[in-house]
Amino acid sequence: MRLKPIGIIHSPFQHATGTPIQPRAAGGAEGAVQVFDEFVAGLKDLRGFGRIWLIYWFDRAIHRKCNLVVKPYLDDRPRGVFATRAPARPNPIGLSSVRLLEVRGNTLRVRDLDVLDGTPLLDIKPYFPQFDSFRNVKSGWLRGSTLRGANADDRFEKRKVKARRATIATRPSASGRLASRRRPGSKA
Amino acid sequence: MRLKPIGIIHSPFQHATGTPIQPRAAGGAEGAVQVFDEFVAGLKDLRGFGRIWLIYWFDRAIHRKCNLVVKPYLDDRPRGVFATRAPARPNPIGLSSVRLLEVRGNTLRVRDLDVLDGTPLLDIKPYFPQFDSFRNVKSGWLRGSTLRGANADDRFEKRKVKARRATIATRPSASGRLASRRRPGSKA
Repeated sequence: MRLKPIGIIHSPFQHATGTPIQPRAAGGAEGAVQVFDEFVAGLKDLRGFGRIWLIYWFDRAIHRKCNLVVKPYLDDRPRGVFATRAPARPNPIGLSSVRLLEVRGNTLRVRDLDVLDGTPLLDIKPYFPQFDSFRNVKSGWLRGSTLRGANADDRFEKRKVKARRATIATRPSASGRLASRRRPGSKA
Repeated sequence: MRLKPIGIIHSPFQHATGTPIQPRAAGGAEGAVQVFDEFVAGLKDLRGFGRIWLIYWFDRAIHRKCNLVVKPYLDDRPRGVFATRAPARPNPIGLSSVRLLEVRGNTLRVRDLDVLDGTPLLDIKPYFPQFDSFRNVKSGWLRGSTLRGANADDRFEKRKVKARRATIATRPSASGRLASRRRPGSKA
């Protein structure tokens, strides 16, 4: 089961630390989803949807040897990873519902973005309130938790040690190298 | 970007034809999500959530050479694939919100299942109404469409021709062969 990126997500967030943990906590952060030219035909009719699902690859999160029990951002106690939305998971697939502001050519302007800049995009699906919206649903441990902070830190990042070493050695910064590798189709 | 199955979804639906197209249309169909033993620790704390997201691999849908413009089940007109939930997409990742009835050992009993039997499971995430539920959202072409049917047909399936040939040649049926290849950890 192999995936290929269909585009790149551009956001104001360069590092996990400080990035909003969920779209609703993103305080309206705007960004751009750039779809590679070969997939642009698939964007037809997306205009007219108020929200879309972005499915993406947590490219900077630990996954090969990730823990199955983690301490999520919104709680003090360790929880099973499948009962959290933590990015460090066996298949590092991310899921965010964002507001769709504009479709222009190969670029979608979106709001409520909680994703790191340069994240590889895997899929876009329309948000159907008829199928996706459920109000009175029990939300397990989250209900008892007080939302202590709406921003992430680096607990699930895999490159933090390497990034520090690279800075010390005065080589091109690790984040710079990663960025160029991560964004084959980016204008940046 | 490589994925590994973390489990298998068991449902009453053997073929695309007749399978509900979305969980809300599934009429309460029940099934079981079987998580492979090595990932069971990650299920801790899932009990207590009313709904969960299943993220899975559309293993029987066309994807390598899928069309970017498709006629979805719920409309007469061709639409960009990213404006639909059609299974035949560049990265064949499926997303369904199902009701969680019970967690027992490595098995989750779920309701509102719209997934083919034997589908490889990639991820489970808790449904957080705070982050996932949006009511008054424009739903593009779907708004103008009349929900003509709640069940799928075989338009996105890749094996339909082979299955017919195999039957004619009186070899083991293609669906049987697929099933055994698809379910390495299945009890079935």
